[in-house]
Amino acid sequence: MAKVPKKILNDPRNVVTEMLDGLALANDGRVERLDGKDILIRTDLPDSKVTLLIGGGSGHEPIFHGFVGQNMGDAAACGQVFAAPSPDTIMDAAMAAHRGKGILFLYGNYAGDNMNFDIAAELLEEEEGIDVRTVRVNDDVAAAPPERADDRRGIAGDIYAIKVAGGAAEECDTLDEVERIARKAVGNLRSMGVAVAAGSIPETGKLTFELADDEIEIGMGAHGEAGIAKQKIASADDVADQIMEKILDDMPLGKGDEIALMINNLGATTMMEMLIVNRRVRQILADRGTIVHRTDVGTFLTVQEMAGFSITVMKLDDELKHYLDLPARSVGLSNM
Amino acid sequence: MAKVPKKILNDPRNVVTEMLDGLALANDGRVERLDGKDILIRTDLPDSKVTLLIGGGSGHEPIFHGFVGQNMGDAAACGQVFAAPSPDTIMDAAMAAHRGKGILFLYGNYAGDNMNFDIAAELLEEEEGIDVRTVRVNDDVAAAPPERADDRRGIAGDIYAIKVAGGAAEECDTLDEVERIARKAVGNLRSMGVAVAAGSIPETGKLTFELADDEIEIGMGAHGEAGIAKQKIASADDVADQIMEKILDDMPLGKGDEIALMINNLGATTMMEMLIVNRRVRQILADRGTIVHRTDVGTFLTVQEMAGFSITVMKLDDELKHYLDLPARSVGLSNM
Repeated sequence: MAKVPKKILNDPRNVVTEMLDGLALANDGRVERLDGKDILIRTDLPDSKVTLLIGGGSGHEPIFHGFVGQNMGDAAACGQVFAAPSPDTIMDAAMAAHRGKGILFLYGNYAGDNMNFDIAAELLEEEEGIDVRTVRVNDDVAAAPPERADDRRGIAGDIYAIKVAGGAAEECDTLDEVERIARKAVGNLRSMGVAVAAGSIPETGKLTFELADDEIEIGMGAHGEAGIAKQKIASADDVADQIMEKILDDMPLGKGDEIALMINNLGATTMMEMLIVNRRVRQILADRGTIVHRTDVGTFLTVQEMAGFSITVMKLDDELKHYLDLPARSVGLSNM
Repeated sequence: MAKVPKKILNDPRNVVTEMLDGLALANDGRVERLDGKDILIRTDLPDSKVTLLIGGGSGHEPIFHGFVGQNMGDAAACGQVFAAPSPDTIMDAAMAAHRGKGILFLYGNYAGDNMNFDIAAELLEEEEGIDVRTVRVNDDVAAAPPERADDRRGIAGDIYAIKVAGGAAEECDTLDEVERIARKAVGNLRSMGVAVAAGSIPETGKLTFELADDEIEIGMGAHGEAGIAKQKIASADDVADQIMEKILDDMPLGKGDEIALMINNLGATTMMEMLIVNRRVRQILADRGTIVHRTDVGTFLTVQEMAGFSITVMKLDDELKHYLDLPARSVGLSNM
């Protein structure tokens, strides 16, 4: 069994608050922590815009709190490690970020997040009269069959959803329009991951799951939720084939279809491995005549020092391409 | 002792060539692999410009080969894992990227790289009449005392040096000017790292060094070269204090000085740890009145799945700020 890795921390009980301080500072003045709360918010918010509020548990950095910025989230409501933000935190973030045109809540589909964001949405509508819409990212094809797609977890597809919705919230005039575009992005997202080794919980040092020395788990969730199958460790090409088969069964892609492709490091995997996987994924897509418009290989949604990676595909049309390609600046993702 | 981590690879003997294929594809057409050689080169090179050639051993992705692009390197000469590129590879990369205005070689200060880049420079000047200048990054303050600064290794300071020199090579008309600016950037760079656990060599699965379960090593080099001291694992604040003391002894910073600050993941460290370290570094700098103009917290120079991080400081003036702030696009670093 794997050993618990060493971490360089201060008091483990303070990891979230110290991390949020460090994250706010890493934004070079463009984002600040709101009144010492577990909320990050843009300092350069325009006076009038549709608001994009994102959020989720900590411990998955840079998601979610690292994706606040121009053409990205306007604010993030942050939970404790692997725990949803509280309704109060979500309310406070929403009130501070609202600019008169309503708020889109965009987050990963987990029971705790769903419950707390829904409570906050209800209170904001009833008590403050703010129009709130909710789009949940449910891109993990391993989590449930197509007929129960609403039960699927949100994994690294979150990032493309935030990038598209962030651009739309900057440019579009109505919440209806931003919601429509975000919903289209999410509908076109499919992801699946593979776990090679567990990460550990910073407060306790405990591993989130166990895998034998020669085992991997295909389709495992971001917190160690059970995947499709434990199996003996396999080659990069074989693992890529398995993941892509499942994604393409769920969302067929053919000649001339255009996509964005993300290979996301779950924590401790080398970029060399991900690039070798990218090579194979591109062979599979080229065989179908599918065009990769944009590639992101890097570290976007982690589970502490978990080893493994996920593959995300977003099918594009001209509208999604436009918002995806807008320049953006945040700690977790920037592009010109 | 630590276990050797599992990796998802194909034939371990092919890791570099498969990785380079995957890396070229990750550039979405803006960079290609040159004739199947271990060379990555921009496809959008202007007809006339000063050329910036970078390069080094593989296994440290995204550096160096992931930093080719607009306002970054024009081409990268790539070696095998942890080994310098051959003089032939460097020659071929230089010839393909040359656009009539001379070439700046910019790379980390290691004996193997120095030897091979110097051989290539001599041949390019003698046989091809191309003006070649060399700037070696030597930012690791742990590697030698100030009076022997030329013996210091290049670590994550490479990235800021490439960003500045890449911008200068895009905008400046002469090799003299690009060399001057790159040299100033390197002179203003200081870095130091800490190792928490070793990475492994993909071809053999062997760890690059050994550390006891409760030990860390401050100042360790990017390949496991000996650092300043092995010590018991310490708090994030304590480790940050030790590293910053050494950096600031070497390059004093005071009230009103402006810097760029990078906290670089050596592979398997969580972003949470790096953000907590960032918090402490900012306290130290704020106490001195030093201004952080730009922050980069992420994964830029790795040693496979080594755990640990490095801190890099670049002292800025208006000229360095200008070139550092130019938009750039590459697999390893992009910004608007």
